[in-house]
Amino acid sequence: MTASNIPEVIATVAEMQRRVRELRAAGRRVGVVPTMGALHDGHLSLVEAARKYADVVVTTIFVNPTQFAPHEDFGKYPRTLQADLEALGRVGCELAFVPEPGEVYPPGYSTYVEPPSVAAPLEGVCRPGHFRGVATVVLKLFNIVPADVACFGQKDFQQALVIRRMVADLNVPIRIEVCPIVREPDGLAMSSRNRYLSPAERERSLALSRALRRAEELVAAGERRASVVREAMQNVLADAVDRLDYATIADPETLEEPETIERPVVALIAAVVGTTRLIDNMILTPPSNRQA
Amino acid sequence: MTASNIPEVIATVAEMQRRVRELRAAGRRVGVVPTMGALHDGHLSLVEAARKYADVVVTTIFVNPTQFAPHEDFGKYPRTLQADLEALGRVGCELAFVPEPGEVYPPGYSTYVEPPSVAAPLEGVCRPGHFRGVATVVLKLFNIVPADVACFGQKDFQQALVIRRMVADLNVPIRIEVCPIVREPDGLAMSSRNRYLSPAERERSLALSRALRRAEELVAAGERRASVVREAMQNVLADAVDRLDYATIADPETLEEPETIERPVVALIAAVVGTTRLIDNMILTPPSNRQA
Repeated sequence: MTASNIPEVIATVAEMQRRVRELRAAGRRVGVVPTMGALHDGHLSLVEAARKYADVVVTTIFVNPTQFAPHEDFGKYPRTLQADLEALGRVGCELAFVPEPGEVYPPGYSTYVEPPSVAAPLEGVCRPGHFRGVATVVLKLFNIVPADVACFGQKDFQQALVIRRMVADLNVPIRIEVCPIVREPDGLAMSSRNRYLSPAERERSLALSRALRRAEELVAAGERRASVVREAMQNVLADAVDRLDYATIADPETLEEPETIERPVVALIAAVVGTTRLIDNMILTPPSNRQA
Repeated sequence: MTASNIPEVIATVAEMQRRVRELRAAGRRVGVVPTMGALHDGHLSLVEAARKYADVVVTTIFVNPTQFAPHEDFGKYPRTLQADLEALGRVGCELAFVPEPGEVYPPGYSTYVEPPSVAAPLEGVCRPGHFRGVATVVLKLFNIVPADVACFGQKDFQQALVIRRMVADLNVPIRIEVCPIVREPDGLAMSSRNRYLSPAERERSLALSRALRRAEELVAAGERRASVVREAMQNVLADAVDRLDYATIADPETLEEPETIERPVVALIAAVVGTTRLIDNMILTPPSNRQA
């Protein structure tokens, strides 16, 4: 093992653009991992994935105000910059873009991305305006860090889909890689918000991954009726969570909710435990679609 | 004079991106001039301006459906590709991006730019959705032709402002140059739509530039009351045009309409002559702001 260095921190748009331009002019491939900080092993797996595709990895750390609704947790979202930088150093991230809010949204800021139609259902219903903020800041970050490749986690399944469609629609010259969910040993999908959970809530939150595994078992056993699988997930969740926003089966590209599971689908859950909103998902492949 | 060659025509996004990437990797500066074709000397002056800043100029020719309302002239907008290419060759444009509509907006297309607040007044009122379409296609073109510099005409004053603000807000790494209006000898601002005018309408259309010159005279003579200048413009236009959409004085950066002219302002006119909608504008500088 070599000694790890914390990444160089860049705070301004102009300097960040200049550095990436220089790197690419020198023939080096650049990867970018957009984050809101409070990094966990899921984020670090994205940096490790980016290193496979790129010579230099830039992690952006910015708690983006435009993707939070007024009643949401923008103010209390965890900020752990020093620990984040140390963790990034350990996984070989060389550059961190850590701007102040006013550098990203200066006074008079007023241009937004109207996100693609896959932003409308599910999170789009539960968190109106959320994907408008996400699409806007991600497009900005792709212009600030004009990288060859960007890595996102499958944990935010719909977000990754929104970004993939936005990038395709707007012809953004960047490759999007969606990387697997990283889970705690007991199955809970890693999330910066997990630290909000009390020990009792932490226990109850396992219902999300349990419901997904129940759906996976049913589909693997040949169940084709989406309604049966949805109901089974909802039954697992009913007593454990304090509010169930959705637990459904959808097409992984369009998010349309099929009646019959004939192709791979994605099972998606959003639920509140205590005051913490959690999401999770899993791709389910019916037996006939599996390779022998 | 050297013999002119018509520019090489590129029809696909992928090939256009590849060519610009190669040019820039070879250290060549690239300029882009987005147009809807039906080129006149105003467009050609943009190519000539782009050549000052760049080594290679790409002109895009695309009649963008998303910036036309259903009742507007998308279907009959003039298409003169062969003449356009010959004219571009004469002014040293090496590459033309001429995509089919389906290449720019494939089936399922659904991401748009919500333009900055300067898109709201004036044209934003008269042509709802117009700048959403403009901002979207221009952002796409900047990703398809990721140039160092882009040239736009001051004739579409508000459009240039919308694009400048969008580029700043979204951190698009491109320099925007706004180039002077090119006029016919009698004062009419050049426009692809001028060819719609009958000889009698052509004569009446001179009221736009005449109204702007009247405003310029008043301000040069010390008139500070914006209302007086607006009324003078409206008086010049009243009998000549068939519908006056606006004739006003505005701040050149915010488009707010001042009561008193204390700094340089822009006089802006939109009017219909026959069935043709024309726009024109002029920067007016009060005497106290002039350099000796």
